[in-house]
Amino acid sequence: MFRLDELVARLGGDLVGDGALQVRRVATLDQAGEGDLAFLANPKYLSRLKTSQAAAVIVGHKARDAVTDRPRIVADDPYLYYARVAAVFNPPQAAVAGIHPTASVASAIPASVQIDAGVVVEADVELGENVIIGAGCSIGRGSRIGAGSRLAPRVVVYPGSVVGRDCIIHSGAVIGSDGFGFAREKDGRWVKIPQMGRVVIGDDVEIGANTTIDRGALDDTVIGRGAKLDNLIQIAHNVQIGEDTAIAGCVGIAGSTTIGARCMIAGGVGISGHLSIADDVVVSAATVVVKSIHKPGVYTSTLPMQPHADWVRNFSHLRHLDALADRIKALENAVQRTSDANNTQE
Amino acid sequence: MFRLDELVARLGGDLVGDGALQVRRVATLDQAGEGDLAFLANPKYLSRLKTSQAAAVIVGHKARDAVTDRPRIVADDPYLYYARVAAVFNPPQAAVAGIHPTASVASAIPASVQIDAGVVVEADVELGENVIIGAGCSIGRGSRIGAGSRLAPRVVVYPGSVVGRDCIIHSGAVIGSDGFGFAREKDGRWVKIPQMGRVVIGDDVEIGANTTIDRGALDDTVIGRGAKLDNLIQIAHNVQIGEDTAIAGCVGIAGSTTIGARCMIAGGVGISGHLSIADDVVVSAATVVVKSIHKPGVYTSTLPMQPHADWVRNFSHLRHLDALADRIKALENAVQRTSDANNTQE
Amino acid sequence: MFRLDELVARLGGDLVGDGALQVRRVATLDQAGEGDLAFLANPKYLSRLKTSQAAAVIVGHKARDAVTDRPRIVADDPYLYYARVAAVFNPPQAAVAGIHPTASVASAIPASVQIDAGVVVEADVELGENVIIGAGCSIGRGSRIGAGSRLAPRVVVYPGSVVGRDCIIHSGAVIGSDGFGFAREKDGRWVKIPQMGRVVIGDDVEIGANTTIDRGALDDTVIGRGAKLDNLIQIAHNVQIGEDTAIAGCVGIAGSTTIGARCMIAGGVGISGHLSIADDVVVSAATVVVKSIHKPGVYTSTLPMQPHADWVRNFSHLRHLDALADRIKALENAVQRTSDANNTQE
Repeated sequence: MFRLDELVARLGGDLVGDGALQVRRVATLDQAGEGDLAFLANPKYLSRLKTSQAAAVIVGHKARDAVTDRPRIVADDPYLYYARVAAVFNPPQAAVAGIHPTASVASAIPASVQIDAGVVVEADVELGENVIIGAGCSIGRGSRIGAGSRLAPRVVVYPGSVVGRDCIIHSGAVIGSDGFGFAREKDGRWVKIPQMGRVVIGDDVEIGANTTIDRGALDDTVIGRGAKLDNLIQIAHNVQIGEDTAIAGCVGIAGSTTIGARCMIAGGVGISGHLSIADDVVVSAATVVVKSIHKPGVYTSTLPMQPHADWVRNFSHLRHLDALADRIKALENAVQRTSDANNTQE
Repeated sequence: MFRLDELVARLGGDLVGDGALQVRRVATLDQAGEGDLAFLANPKYLSRLKTSQAAAVIVGHKARDAVTDRPRIVADDPYLYYARVAAVFNPPQAAVAGIHPTASVASAIPASVQIDAGVVVEADVELGENVIIGAGCSIGRGSRIGAGSRLAPRVVVYPGSVVGRDCIIHSGAVIGSDGFGFAREKDGRWVKIPQMGRVVIGDDVEIGANTTIDRGALDDTVIGRGAKLDNLIQIAHNVQIGEDTAIAGCVGIAGSTTIGARCMIAGGVGISGHLSIADDVVVSAATVVVKSIHKPGVYTSTLPMQPHADWVRNFSHLRHLDALADRIKALENAVQRTSDANNTQE
Repeated sequence: MFRLDELVARLGGDLVGDGALQVRRVATLDQAGEGDLAFLANPKYLSRLKTSQAAAVIVGHKARDAVTDRPRIVADDPYLYYARVAAVFNPPQAAVAGIHPTASVASAIPASVQIDAGVVVEADVELGENVIIGAGCSIGRGSRIGAGSRLAPRVVVYPGSVVGRDCIIHSGAVIGSDGFGFAREKDGRWVKIPQMGRVVIGDDVEIGANTTIDRGALDDTVIGRGAKLDNLIQIAHNVQIGEDTAIAGCVGIAGSTTIGARCMIAGGVGISGHLSIADDVVVSAATVVVKSIHKPGVYTSTLPMQPHADWVRNFSHLRHLDALADRIKALENAVQRTSDANNTQE
């Protein structure tokens, strides 16, 4: 339970109404009941604000007076304010210091660290203060994980990887697996190229469940500070992701591509190898990026879905666009000839 | 070994021929040998029926007399019948009650439950009768798993998740990881939004290997009874999947989307967030769904593949469809003018 | 440290310059410093060769004299040579024989095998000499893994799977999970079809992190000798992959499809079920294959990305290609009529 005036004292914003009101949690406008603090992030839900049972609300400046009878916090960005309030109500899990008896730890680690059941920490590993290593994680030889970072159960960190401070890595993520590098013999057989680079992850990075990040071949694979990666993402060897770039689920980024800072890569996007993507680029869902992008902006190749019968009728032409274009050219020539002929006749 | 008349007594269907014949297993028509029961599910394989070495066959009503000399079971749906016979021959793994000494179990569990090596069951977990938890699974605090459900090795269930009865969850699946939710600061930094909802999975659900299902932000992520999810699927926070909906591999569904009952989502499909998909919708392979679908039917945006040289020639026009359309409009105007002029001349 | 003449004695190639020179590692031209052996695989980086600080270089025949003052190895294929030299400097991890006390091993295994912490090996498993099973792997009953194969931590091998010699399987990979096979009741409910086939993997195969390979329904799923699979790939039941075929990340291959030898499947490709792909086929990134491919060659359906505004303008026509084609046909008819009329007039 927090009083509204406590929240405002801690997080800023303008308080309108009874600051002594106690709220017990944050909730959506629809879900909120007695004792709940809701938020209006999107003005189009204004009507829901009116019917909501929330005890208090977080609103933007324009909606300041949209509800006159309820205590409210007025914030520049109600959604961001909600994120901060939610973190006050739901602080991140704190390390419960100690090593579970079933863990196998071959490195000296700070007393503040929490190591859960079945964890393996190989030799020469450095863990920062208050690190949490969830059940069944495997931390390879010579890796470093910065203070305050939390690994959910069953994360694998290959030898020699570097994870910054205050990172969150979700279950099943694999950090530092071999890049996909092979040379080819004349007869088609593949010769493995040893992958000797590392994965280096900056501070405050979050990595989703079952996401894979390969180590570099000779140089490192680098994930910049503050980057956020969703689930089931594949980051190939030698990729570099800029600071504060967010990547949604099911994205694949091929080898040696560099992505700038503050980019937003939507779900299902594929990005070819050896490309360079500028800062502040947005790539729409399911787009395939096969060329470098040099300027900020939104880039798209999403295909519009249709009812199947319409699709059959329309998409059959996709194989014959060249012929369609030739027919247009022939028509232009014919029309031009007619026009010339008519002009001559006149 | 089962007698044909035993199978018919148990599963229905019409028996034609010697019901005392013993069969030892089910097999494909091509693979079947002595003692095998094969099935003809697709009439186009009728010729294989004739050459098959199967001792007996399951056929539909139309193929009842296609083989006159072999015992056969005539069923309304031979493929469905095959599925049932196969389950008779290969009953699901039964729990071998007991807790492996290397497991770490912090909750009271029924004596009938099987807990394999290295499993972690945190506090306040409820497991139903005959649950099987495979080696190295991690079951987070406060989770519930219904009777008869089976988890293959290395499944992670985050705290507070709910799994129904008779579910099957394959290795590497992650249930209840944090949704991908962040608010953005003015300088582009991301502020994590605590993910406080749950994952709630109904009865008789199957979840494939390395599939990830995120917990809700404020509300729950819900997988309906009887839904079947293949491998490497990403289900984002607050998604709702209807009953008996089947989703093939490599599908990604973005946050807060609702999918109806009995849908079939083919492999590689991507579905954007905050959409609503009706009951009984079929989405073709690799289609990208960016709008809600309000009516049952088949929906598609699959791109036809071509030999590369043809593709280069055709797809170059895709970037210039607008110009092509303009040229067609210009031609129509020119032809109209010519026609008008000719009419005037006449 | 190796002398250049030692390397040439071991790996072939022509030595030009001081063979007594010692090199300590391989490096890129840009990265290389004192004691480093760099390589020029792509002639377009010739200028980097000139500025590189490398002590020695691997070059092709054409670049033999591009640097006159540095010791060099001249090879037919400098990239392949680099791969081999890198393997000399970085030999694969050798098994450290022994079973970790926290492992649960229910089969007799050779003394040369390395079993790490928390591993589970069920009954009737056969492991070849020098196999390495990384921490937390689960090897199901009756599986076989050939000599020299190495499993990184947290790999799951379901019962009855077969892995060849000298394979590498990365963390989180799941081998032998159930195929996605269901028959459908009239009311839409799914009846699971027991998956009774195996996964059979040939020698010298590499399988990437979090890749999933389902067991066959009745027959086996087969990965041919020398095949290389990257991360987050889904191989459905009964698929057959030919020898030396390489598959990049995020590819999905649906059930019962057969892929030939020496194919190269780029990242993000989706291949439908029940298809047949010939030997030596190359499929471009993100292409969707919905028909069999009978001839070697390159096949593509990658969509060109555009700035979003251009995409909106162009792709809106995609839904109306049929109408565009009709308008072209109408124009052709009109122009023909005009032409006929003019001819008649003359």
